[in-house]
Amino acid sequence: MPDLSRRRLLTGAGLAVGAGAAAVAGAGLVRQPEPARPDPAGVVVPFYGPHQAGIATPVQDRLHFAAFDLSTDSREEVVAMLKAWTAAAARMTAAQEIGGGATGTELAPPDDTGEAIGLPASRLTLTVGFGPSFFDKLKLPRPDLLKELPHFPADKLDPARSGGDLCVQACADDPQVAVHAVRNLVRIGFGTASIRWSQLGFGKTSSTTPDAQTPRNLMGFKDGTNNIAGTDGRKLDEHVWVGAEGPEWMRGGSYLVARRIRMHVETWDRSSLKEQEDVFGRTKREGAPYGGAREHDPVVLDKMPVDAHVRLANPAALSGVTILRRGYSFTDGSDGLGRLDAGLFFLAYQRDPEKGFIPIQRALAAKDALNEYIQHVGSGIFACPGGVRPGSFWGETLLA
Amino acid sequence: MPDLSRRRLLTGAGLAVGAGAAAVAGAGLVRQPEPARPDPAGVVVPFYGPHQAGIATPVQDRLHFAAFDLSTDSREEVVAMLKAWTAAAARMTAAQEIGGGATGTELAPPDDTGEAIGLPASRLTLTVGFGPSFFDKLKLPRPDLLKELPHFPADKLDPARSGGDLCVQACADDPQVAVHAVRNLVRIGFGTASIRWSQLGFGKTSSTTPDAQTPRNLMGFKDGTNNIAGTDGRKLDEHVWVGAEGPEWMRGGSYLVARRIRMHVETWDRSSLKEQEDVFGRTKREGAPYGGAREHDPVVLDKMPVDAHVRLANPAALSGVTILRRGYSFTDGSDGLGRLDAGLFFLAYQRDPEKGFIPIQRALAAKDALNEYIQHVGSGIFACPGGVRPGSFWGETLLA
Ligand code: HEM
Ligand code: HEM
Repeated sequence: MPDLSRRRLLTGAGLAVGAGAAAVAGAGLVRQPEPARPDPAGVVVPFYGPHQAGIATPVQDRLHFAAFDLSTDSREEVVAMLKAWTAAAARMTAAQEIGGGATGTELAPPDDTGEAIGLPASRLTLTVGFGPSFFDKLKLPRPDLLKELPHFPADKLDPARSGGDLCVQACADDPQVAVHAVRNLVRIGFGTASIRWSQLGFGKTSSTTPDAQTPRNLMGFKDGTNNIAGTDGRKLDEHVWVGAEGPEWMRGGSYLVARRIRMHVETWDRSSLKEQEDVFGRTKREGAPYGGAREHDPVVLDKMPVDAHVRLANPAALSGVTILRRGYSFTDGSDGLGRLDAGLFFLAYQRDPEKGFIPIQRALAAKDALNEYIQHVGSGIFACPGGVRPGSFWGETLLA
Repeated sequence: MPDLSRRRLLTGAGLAVGAGAAAVAGAGLVRQPEPARPDPAGVVVPFYGPHQAGIATPVQDRLHFAAFDLSTDSREEVVAMLKAWTAAAARMTAAQEIGGGATGTELAPPDDTGEAIGLPASRLTLTVGFGPSFFDKLKLPRPDLLKELPHFPADKLDPARSGGDLCVQACADDPQVAVHAVRNLVRIGFGTASIRWSQLGFGKTSSTTPDAQTPRNLMGFKDGTNNIAGTDGRKLDEHVWVGAEGPEWMRGGSYLVARRIRMHVETWDRSSLKEQEDVFGRTKREGAPYGGAREHDPVVLDKMPVDAHVRLANPAALSGVTILRRGYSFTDGSDGLGRLDAGLFFLAYQRDPEKGFIPIQRALAAKDALNEYIQHVGSGIFACPGGVRPGSFWGETLLA
């Protein structure tokens, strides 16, 4: 069997971006993304490391997020699945076919579904998390910080888009690569876990690379201006990575909150520019905070309307509470009432949800001007363990 | 207000593939400049020309397809909307903001929703078609060739994903650009037409550029090997573009059949490689027809199983019947039963549906081995008029 271009990229033209990956960006206001990389599609994000990839990693363009439910309460079966998942993930993120690829005309199903053959790594990352029900089903001690989220006013959560025993966040610059990865984990998990809900994100809405152009969300605003940078080791250690407080298997890990937030885009599109800018306390075109002129000028709270989103969410308003946002825009057709089913699939990583998503969302739910234009319709919380070492597997220190 | 990079691309670094490119679509001999493009994202596909862009145009990576229903039977209102749509489309495909962009802090809604500000043209094309009900509602004579499609065995069409008075096919290499375009047409159409259903396609499944690498569909097979090339002027004239047979406003236009085809990926993934290859009559890895060794080796019908998809769909089996395929893969989350809602959003253009989609689908529905793994769940047929001249608007010769 001829070996394929995907594999070649690993050793040839492709760049394996190691520790310095985040440093790529530099510092500045460059607009067109990264003209200098020889073949960005060939970039491989290392799967192994002290942290799971896909958290501090510079945000890729596309997302396929999947929540799974266990169909067993046997730890052995779950361990077997997680071992197989890890092996497959290590190969797929390196643009290799699972199991070395199908050959000839055997009478067994191919090891790999094949739709990513010939495609480069596209910076694929796969990040796994365990929901509260995972621990209950397997009779494992739940980390103290992993509680079901409280109900927030105006939440209208659809159980069919919420919860899940496990989650997989697949991010890549090519959606075919992200979808391929999730689909193969589904296939491998058959009999042990099945998909509960999943979400495609077509465009990143947050940047974790401070010098890259800040992407715009579906409200047309730059999103991710004041975000934790994937290069900011100090802030990551302080606000994102679980430290000595443990539990041990969570060291270097992080808690993930996922929220499917529907936008009423038709209403938004009929509101004036001034109204839209007042909602965020930032200008639409430049993204400058009220009172400032440029996007990265400092936020001065009392220059903003009291109910402005940024005024309420800014760390200065919340005794320093900070999260790493890594959300994606979605558009899932229309809702049968002539409206687009579009919005923000919000993903936030933090060391402690009580010092991250929960207090921010409490403040927002109480009085954010944005609430007139959005509704939270799906929700999940997951404990994402620390990084995977070669020879180890996802969750080994928890389960073994 | 500072002018933005999108605009600059038109006159600066970006390539406006101008007069010469209109000729591309027309005579169909020149190809989009492929390997030497300094910034492929900046390429503008000309909106005006003898044919609508988005048909013979080399297939872009992403799709947002929308079907609309009229909320009026007034031709004047529809004409006004189509004029406004055309003006907006001409700007958006050139990476310009609609209406010159929002400025200052006016108290009117911005002209443009803004989420594509700063993004290059990304080869955006917008293609409009009129469904049978469009003519009925506006009391216009239907073209003889535009009939509702017949029912095919095993069709399980969801009315909420079928039909529509009008359609817009938005294709671009960046989904944000395609979604932005549809969303702004929705906004402009408010009061005259509203969205009936829409579909995002995340990956192209057919190639219309014979030298490019053939993309793979979600079954892992190369798709589009034997397709009409966008460069093949003779075949386009023979099988795709409506000619002197008219009606006049359809000259240079084409009939579009859209089918949402769900794939039972979980069943497919558990079938053997041999079974999968027998379904198509081609090998999975190389895409070679049975009896051949390379992808582009000629199809020899009697080397294939009698129920192989390619054997049934090949022109040699159907007295020369041929279509231009331009489909996209979709994954719309999961279906509540633990299965991915994934498949192929099939788009086919042809000069006459009775000499294109209909006889092929009759043959396939009767005995295609693929039927075990797929189901047609949505359907639409649309008459896409000929190209738009500067100063004219979509459907002018029909409606004025
Ligand atoms: C559809 C829903 C949302 C939209 C459209 C949205 C949009 C924005 C925008 C445009 C900004 C300003 C630019 C920036 O600094 O990133 C921002 C900032 C921020 N948002 Fe949101 N957001 C949404 C939901 C949320 C939620 C649910 C949370 C957390 C509970 C959140 C937390 C934040 C934080 C922490 C900031 C940074 C504030 C600062 O430090 O200045 N946002 N958001
Ligand atoms: C999920 C549904 C479908 C899948 C996965 C699929 C897949 C494929 C594949 C893999 C090929 C071989 C490569 C190529 O020449 O492009 C092919 C060929 C073809 N298909 Fe399909 N197809 C589907 C539905 C359809 C439908 C609905 C039609 C039309 C009614 C159609 C018409 C054709 C034609 C005309 C060819 C070329 C045959 C030849 O000239 O050799 N396909 N398809």
